[in-house]
Amino acid sequence: MFFSFEGIDGSGKSTQARLLADALRQRGLDVVEVREPGGTELGERIRALLLNPEADINGRAELLLFSAARAQLVSAVVRPALARGAVVIADRFHDSATAYQGAGRGLANPDWLAALHRFATFDTLPARTYFVDVDLETAEARRGDRASDRMEREGQDYFERIRTAYLRIAAEEQARVCTLDGRAPVDEIQATVLTDAVRHLS
Amino acid sequence: MFFSFEGIDGSGKSTQARLLADALRQRGLDVVEVREPGGTELGERIRALLLNPEADINGRAELLLFSAARAQLVSAVVRPALARGAVVIADRFHDSATAYQGAGRGLANPDWLAALHRFATFDTLPARTYFVDVDLETAEARRGDRASDRMEREGQDYFERIRTAYLRIAAEEQARVCTLDGRAPVDEIQATVLTDAVRHLS
Repeated sequence: MFFSFEGIDGSGKSTQARLLADALRQRGLDVVEVREPGGTELGERIRALLLNPEADINGRAELLLFSAARAQLVSAVVRPALARGAVVIADRFHDSATAYQGAGRGLANPDWLAALHRFATFDTLPARTYFVDVDLETAEARRGDRASDRMEREGQDYFERIRTAYLRIAAEEQARVCTLDGRAPVDEIQATVLTDAVRHLS
Repeated sequence: MFFSFEGIDGSGKSTQARLLADALRQRGLDVVEVREPGGTELGERIRALLLNPEADINGRAELLLFSAARAQLVSAVVRPALARGAVVIADRFHDSATAYQGAGRGLANPDWLAALHRFATFDTLPARTYFVDVDLETAEARRGDRASDRMEREGQDYFERIRTAYLRIAAEEQARVCTLDGRAPVDEIQATVLTDAVRHLS
């Protein structure tokens, strides 16, 4: 079973991904957590390139770098884990590329993006996705303490386009995407996610 | 005007690219030389990732990394140079991806590759391409002295698939691709290339 967590920076999705992994491990399941970009040596090197605040990277190169990291992650980690029956939990996956590069950077040809995702993932897409949705003010307040990387230094418009893209994905793929109100207490969101995940696992 | 040079490693294409650049500069032209992958700070970092003999990089990730480097090169160097009227000479461009990753790594869906090239290059493709063709034995003998990188350590089959792919591209796109016998003397090939290039520039 393959789960992904999505949302804008500061939504709380990484916390929820970790809590679900912990809860499933306590139930005796083999759980593999991955994060995008990264999770492989190549991916971590690409992550360092992408998050460097000084880097000059155009939107198309950015999309292709994220896709390269994803291709390595899927072939080296995700597919072997799924093949042995493990649960894979991804903190960001292909929807992030659709939202951040597709909508955020204005590279929004949906057919092209879908073809790129299929290629980069070897057709291995999450069966269930948790989209932790928060308004931009809440996300910004939560991000407040962290040093901002190249992606997070973008303006309000950028994050607005990304949130809108996530909401559209959630509307178009209701069977896959479960939308959660990220302003709710952490343990309340966690309980909803766990109940849903267990139902999908059984 | 945008020229590219293609061929397997050891074909002599880099020498020919440099000689054409020198000859056109002597005629007073503004010439910009680029090499793939590389030519930008991001590209050189990607180049280091790709050529590292220890790296674990699957074929799809490799194709996407080359494409990311190309997208940056085109947006930061090639398009600005062409816009100001310079001649751009590329030592490898999109045909290398078709040959090396498409055929060499067996990622050979031609429609998908063509769409990827159009995306990564912002539809900026060479107007004239010089394919320096040599048999594998000649190329291997010429490569003999150089330390072999991750790509060059591949076996004979790999280079055979690549050469075949180049020959197919040359056959399919005769108006763009000029095939040269790489076993001829360097100055003879150079003379042929220069005459052809000058004709295309006028």
